[in-house]
Amino acid sequence: MAWFEHELRVRYVETDQMGVVYHANYLNWFEVGRTELMRSMGLTYRTFEEKGLLLPASEVHVHYHRPAHYDDVVIIRVSLQEAKVRFTFVYEVIRQSDQALLVTGSTTHAWVNESMKPISIRKAAPEFYDSVQRYVVSADEKGDSV
Amino acid sequence: MAWFEHELRVRYVETDQMGVVYHANYLNWFEVGRTELMRSMGLTYRTFEEKGLLLPASEVHVHYHRPAHYDDVVIIRVSLQEAKVRFTFVYEVIRQSDQALLVTGSTTHAWVNESMKPISIRKAAPEFYDSVQRYVVSADEKGDSV
Amino acid sequence: MAWFEHELRVRYVETDQMGVVYHANYLNWFEVGRTELMRSMGLTYRTFEEKGLLLPASEVHVHYHRPAHYDDVVIIRVSLQEAKVRFTFVYEVIRQSDQALLVTGSTTHAWVNESMKPISIRKAAPEFYDSVQRYVVSADEKGDSV
Amino acid sequence: MAWFEHELRVRYVETDQMGVVYHANYLNWFEVGRTELMRSMGLTYRTFEEKGLLLPASEVHVHYHRPAHYDDVVIIRVSLQEAKVRFTFVYEVIRQSDQALLVTGSTTHAWVNESMKPISIRKAAPEFYDSVQRYVVSADEKGDSV
Repeated sequence: MAWFEHELRVRYVETDQMGVVYHANYLNWFEVGRTELMRSMGLTYRTFEEKGLLLPASEVHVHYHRPAHYDDVVIIRVSLQEAKVRFTFVYEVIRQSDQALLVTGSTTHAWVNESMKPISIRKAAPEFYDSVQRYVVSADEKGDSV
Repeated sequence: MAWFEHELRVRYVETDQMGVVYHANYLNWFEVGRTELMRSMGLTYRTFEEKGLLLPASEVHVHYHRPAHYDDVVIIRVSLQEAKVRFTFVYEVIRQSDQALLVTGSTTHAWVNESMKPISIRKAAPEFYDSVQRYVVSADEKGDSV
Repeated sequence: MAWFEHELRVRYVETDQMGVVYHANYLNWFEVGRTELMRSMGLTYRTFEEKGLLLPASEVHVHYHRPAHYDDVVIIRVSLQEAKVRFTFVYEVIRQSDQALLVTGSTTHAWVNESMKPISIRKAAPEFYDSVQRYVVSADEKGDSV
Repeated sequence: MAWFEHELRVRYVETDQMGVVYHANYLNWFEVGRTELMRSMGLTYRTFEEKGLLLPASEVHVHYHRPAHYDDVVIIRVSLQEAKVRFTFVYEVIRQSDQALLVTGSTTHAWVNESMKPISIRKAAPEFYDSVQRYVVSADEKGDSV
């Protein structure tokens, strides 16, 4: 699979009294990963929202393998696995210092309008839809060679 | 001063690796206190926002005396001290079990429209403005007798 | 299934610019639900942590059906479905006003010590372990009659 | 004044239903700024905590001038203004695109041990204390020439 990678450093607010990153924060990081993946494709999610095209999460799955700690640099790896009616992203979170795999997960999303009604992104943004298809295909092909 | 009181229990996500409540979370609790104070006056802030009247913070001051811990029940005490062009609320956070004073603070707000432009709440919502004036006066008077 | 129910009101900080509750916050609410379920069984999770017994999440699954909004009162329904080496909780989030089902999900947890090493809760807290078994069984039986 | 600068990009989770950054999040960004300022001095706050030296906030003041929006790149400017018994940091948050001043503020902190009892950082970490003094002096001097 072709991963897009984005680094960030764990903030104090993200820790809890176990001394590790509170588990809900990985969803925030996944969101950062998605945003930066789209930016790397020449798109800004912000622009979609300004046009009234929103991409809320409909499903989330997370597996926690090892905890991240305050001040760790972590690498968010994200890949767009499906981009039809639903968009599915998969994720890995790696600690930079020891390359430990901390978390794996996936999120599924459906495009909606500002009233939260489902829309066809194929019709609403056909150029975007086509370019994303090529990206998913391309990711698959790269994936074969890994 | 006449305090309105609202109780809440500390959530795990609100702790940090010091084993106490992360300091920014008190601003969230202040917001809950403001909302519930307005509700006790027969008003819901939600309704104001639905009419396009927003009340963002323009100033925040917090003093931290003692830390709150996970699962503590805390009492948010809030009072509306000024309600002219700017609205100023003052706060105390008390731990229920030992009545310890944990935090004191104040927030100042200005009414704006959905484009974040300042508006006169006196003109936009005269009935609300008048009833709030009576509340501030009444709070002052009660305060004298405390 | 036997649900334990806990109510809470949506806070402003929990919304995002879509005008709905940001999806990661449901994990915080699940945690509140777990804590209150345990309290209803006569146990406080806080006490376990004070003894060095921690229950971090190892897996999380969430399905988002409808969005919650600011100031909504939501009901967190939680049930303990398995309590062996791993503890699995299942959840529903319902909006009180219209009884709409907003979110369903589950979380799986493993007991660890303060060094995040797995421990046997059966050995570390046998009385708790036994009473929880009865609770899970009892929940199953009640579930049959629903 | 000599500012240390650190950039970050606004995350979706940091917005609220006003369509702007929720005001409490600026305290998280201040914390990131402090951490990075210390790192630029060759120190990691993480190391202090590992030695049992903690620096919780005792006071926070924030003025909100203009809102930050999702996906904005903001510059956190931070300076250490006093470093005696109490450490005081001052902050500015600037939007990169138009250099607009969004927020100004300050935080005051006192060093404590793991039981949250005040300690003398001068005695607990004399080398650090001395080097920080030079930094504060140096900042003052640089400030004169600005």
